[in-house]
Amino acid sequence: MTEIEITDVTAACGTSLVGEPLSEGAAEELAHTMKALADPTRLRLLSMVAASTGGEACVCDLTEPVGLSQPTVSHHLKVLTEAGFLSRTKRGTWAYYALVPGALDRISRALGAA
Amino acid sequence: MTEIEITDVTAACGTSLVGEPLSEGAAEELAHTMKALADPTRLRLLSMVAASTGGEACVCDLTEPVGLSQPTVSHHLKVLTEAGFLSRTKRGTWAYYALVPGALDRISRALGAA
Repeated sequence: MTEIEITDVTAACGTSLVGEPLSEGAAEELAHTMKALADPTRLRLLSMVAASTGGEACVCDLTEPVGLSQPTVSHHLKVLTEAGFLSRTKRGTWAYYALVPGALDRISRALGAA
Repeated sequence: MTEIEITDVTAACGTSLVGEPLSEGAAEELAHTMKALADPTRLRLLSMVAASTGGEACVCDLTEPVGLSQPTVSHHLKVLTEAGFLSRTKRGTWAYYALVPGALDRISRALGAA
């Protein structure tokens, strides 16, 4: 069974901090996306997934390096997946996570980078 | 009297989410900086300062558009200043805020944008 979930980083797409003042709605959406990144464990997990061979990592590969339980790591990966930064593919017993192409670039652009 | 405070966005300088896995220390620093941006009011204030004539805004210009009290707005501006996104210059009664050049670009780069 294969299951892929990609959701809401696109909500922040097209908004930019530098230009016109952000509307209330756009600011809410961008803040929600930023919250997913405002946690040291989630940042480390994202960077580990990005650095994985084949660009994909299993929860089973990530628990030891961050030194947290599997449910805790799975929770953080879920937040990153729901925010649109990771995709999740289930194969057999394990879920595999990969960076969603362009998701970090979209946030970079929202922060006003050229 | 002129007073300028610029602090810790440089802590996240040189770290990147895409490349090697982030160290615990680098992840803590980057998450701390991201937390300053993970709030809709602070995002709106940053965008308002960026869009101000002359690139500078007074607290007195910002309270009405966000619909919050001056102490609340001042608190959010302080968080953004301490995180290194805004500089603060006091002239007479009022403090004026401006974007710190390059601060948002450094965060963009930390997120792995080219």
